[in-house]
Amino acid sequence: MSKQDLSVVDVSEAACCAPLACEPLNATEADELAPLFKAIGDPVRLRLLSLIACHEGGEACVCDLTSAFDLTAPTISHHLKVLKQAGLIDSERRGTWVYYWINPQTLQRLSAILGPRQAAGLVRA
Amino acid sequence: MSKQDLSVVDVSEAACCAPLACEPLNATEADELAPLFKAIGDPVRLRLLSLIACHEGGEACVCDLTSAFDLTAPTISHHLKVLKQAGLIDSERRGTWVYYWINPQTLQRLSAILGPRQAAGLVRA
Repeated sequence: MSKQDLSVVDVSEAACCAPLACEPLNATEADELAPLFKAIGDPVRLRLLSLIACHEGGEACVCDLTSAFDLTAPTISHHLKVLKQAGLIDSERRGTWVYYWINPQTLQRLSAILGPRQAAGLVRA
Repeated sequence: MSKQDLSVVDVSEAACCAPLACEPLNATEADELAPLFKAIGDPVRLRLLSLIACHEGGEACVCDLTSAFDLTAPTISHHLKVLKQAGLIDSERRGTWVYYWINPQTLQRLSAILGPRQAAGLVRA
């Protein structure tokens, strides 16, 4: 390998994967993040999140969501409330219906914690 | 923008973000994936995963992990068992101690589902 090859190494990536730079999540961070993963850790909520994210225009009316499940409207509303309380989605009432959309920053933070840049890993994102 | 600029657009990225290509997780996929997020959705298990991933050499002895918590060894072992049953970590006994390491493929799959490429999102990874 020439000197030029070495010079193009991404320093930030290298630092991420150096054993000394790998700092595990502390108790406070874990306490903050675990409830978000727990909120996603339910098949109905995971599908709701996916349906909202994939819906035309990036937002979905509660009326679009209930039809995808063999569940009552109050049950769907409960799961949406859990996702919203965790900060994974946000909502707004417009007339008769409530509309939901995902919070991309929150999802990206969770993704980064589990992601390949943190393969050395699970470090602060 | 010249024609040449357009030609370098990553087709797979563009397809990912086109509304028609956004296919939400189905019930089977959600049933399979939700238990993995649920396993991470506990502060002790999230920290254990992080400590294992950050440990020197990418693996940690159970003896290295218990000291980080104010919990009994059987409690730590229970949480490690949950992570292993979910397929997030693997282990091997060597002499007196059991050694643990993360399963990077599983973590990367979860990361990809929540990640920015799926910002349109949460599509099949």
